[in-house]
Amino acid sequence: ADAAAIAEARAHQDRLTKPRGALGALEDVAVRLAGASAVSPPPLPVPPALAIFAADHGVHARGVSPWPQEVTLQMVGNFLAGGAVANAFAAQVGASVTVVDVGVAADLDPAPGLRISKVAYGTADMSRGPAMTVEQATAALEVGITVARDLVGEGARCLVTGDMGIANTTASAALICAFTGHDAAAATGRGTGADDETLERKIGVVREALRANGLVGAEGGPSRAPALETLAAVGGLEHAAIAGFILGGAACGVPVILDGVIAGSAALAAAALAPAAIDHCVAGHRSAEPGHAVVLDHLGLRPMVELELRLGEGTGGLLAHPLVCAAVRAMHEVATFDSAGVTDKEA
Amino acid sequence: ADAAAIAEARAHQDRLTKPRGALGALEDVAVRLAGASAVSPPPLPVPPALAIFAADHGVHARGVSPWPQEVTLQMVGNFLAGGAVANAFAAQVGASVTVVDVGVAADLDPAPGLRISKVAYGTADMSRGPAMTVEQATAALEVGITVARDLVGEGARCLVTGDMGIANTTASAALICAFTGHDAAAATGRGTGADDETLERKIGVVREALRANGLVGAEGGPSRAPALETLAAVGGLEHAAIAGFILGGAACGVPVILDGVIAGSAALAAAALAPAAIDHCVAGHRSAEPGHAVVLDHLGLRPMVELELRLGEGTGGLLAHPLVCAAVRAMHEVATFDSAGVTDKEA
Repeated sequence: ADAAAIAEARAHQDRLTKPRGALGALEDVAVRLAGASAVSPPPLPVPPALAIFAADHGVHARGVSPWPQEVTLQMVGNFLAGGAVANAFAAQVGASVTVVDVGVAADLDPAPGLRISKVAYGTADMSRGPAMTVEQATAALEVGITVARDLVGEGARCLVTGDMGIANTTASAALICAFTGHDAAAATGRGTGADDETLERKIGVVREALRANGLVGAEGGPSRAPALETLAAVGGLEHAAIAGFILGGAACGVPVILDGVIAGSAALAAAALAPAAIDHCVAGHRSAEPGHAVVLDHLGLRPMVELELRLGEGTGGLLAHPLVCAAVRAMHEVATFDSAGVTDKEA
Repeated sequence: ADAAAIAEARAHQDRLTKPRGALGALEDVAVRLAGASAVSPPPLPVPPALAIFAADHGVHARGVSPWPQEVTLQMVGNFLAGGAVANAFAAQVGASVTVVDVGVAADLDPAPGLRISKVAYGTADMSRGPAMTVEQATAALEVGITVARDLVGEGARCLVTGDMGIANTTASAALICAFTGHDAAAATGRGTGADDETLERKIGVVREALRANGLVGAEGGPSRAPALETLAAVGGLEHAAIAGFILGGAACGVPVILDGVIAGSAALAAAALAPAAIDHCVAGHRSAEPGHAVVLDHLGLRPMVELELRLGEGTGGLLAHPLVCAAVRAMHEVATFDSAGVTDKEA
């Protein structure tokens, strides 16, 4: 982050016709984006573009989700038909929607709005060994980087992460344990609606996956495995692609609004690969998944929205976009005490 | 609220292509608005209209704010020139901005976007007796009702409350104490930036105002004075107008998004006068003022945004508008499991 732009942004906030600090966390996000973009005020993050990375998970066979695997494919169809919540929220905030098949366990027909960049027909079962080879994880990362670069090339000035993949909160939980050292019980949640029995099984499967891949850190700390190997071992193809999407967005210099726990666990991988990329990230919301709070705390990110969403698809990230926009817009449009002739109590 | 519309809205939420409850608090707000409008899905709350009610406060003379009283007038000028944060946020969400002089302690020149409906040149000092006569409070209520009716008549389908009045958090604190029975220390905050000494003085002044107006309830409970007398005794002209704005919006059947502690304390008066009006209210945010949490708890309202804003003007209400819109939009636009051919785990 650019220290001079941060200092200038903070000073500018204090000249605006409002009590100092009165915009709370919105002032902080605008200042952070000034640092990331190295200019104050930072550019307005419009238009936004949502990319929904879809993939399947071998670990689904272990009974970690109440939903059948084919729902991944069915929901891709729903996104392309404009019928999902992500479509409604994208329309609300003026975001384009791109669906990326990075690993759905079925062949998809070409369609407008769909990018077929399939690396594999889903991952292998991580509870028995690596979910992906390092080559597959790298290929999925590259898919994300390319999508980010292409969307920015087409005019997007803000990227929003989205995901679809039945069982992907199980992979997220394992990534969170490996990267932060938290126990599976603290990082694993009910996802899209696991009952008590399924949740218990899911926690056990996460523990198995960590052991099977040698990702249990010494004395309960994080694993010392290289980030890319960790991502390959217990991540999903969409997690790897989202990590790449974050890296690509950061490289292009645009803000990346993270959705929920899937994006958060992918951001842990991105942070391990290139810590400065997180300067470009805004936590769109904090989901109901317990592991998401662990992620946000680990990355030091304050969520914009806290409404107990647990849907994914990018919905929480989309909801945050108008808030991020408002934070930046205030820096562009609000008068200063001097220019407006308003008495400043601090002056 | 209409029980049939609420039941239909809840059932409709459960048919949409998302796990049940996955939109968290957004599902609840959409269901509440269905009940308020007696139709499911409820109408999209667009376009929104912001009304900023501006007034001055006799209690300012007691040194409860670090800002000089003329800042109320200066900020009205800033709103009319488009230079305030409220203007930037209104532009962000497509809201019109109407400034209402309901009690500024100076004469204002006519200007586009300004309604001059002055009831008095500010209130009297509530620490020595009633801030307003009951007639003045009634007149200010009627101003708010009229503004609501006019804005809806001009096409608004969602109202957002705004306020400007140096020292108005002191009046809010007294209203909160009188209506909820909380102690002044729990209901009084730093407003736009009171230091420790000013905060202590402010708490003492709130206590004096409650005693001077006979509003100290038995055994620490709420005052038993009639709502209109309480509002007149320790409210501000903008508080009374906002209470009327809430009643007017509810009577017109449109959602009213409440901003922060000023709107919240006005909503306590509106709730005391007509409890059903609160069915139409959405808490836009929870501000950093401690009294605001007391209000939201008392009214049973869940805030949409929690970002430690403490600005007023309607800024927190405006930020919530896209979230409320997204909640309603999901009910209109999202496909059902049946229509989209997505497998429902509950079916």
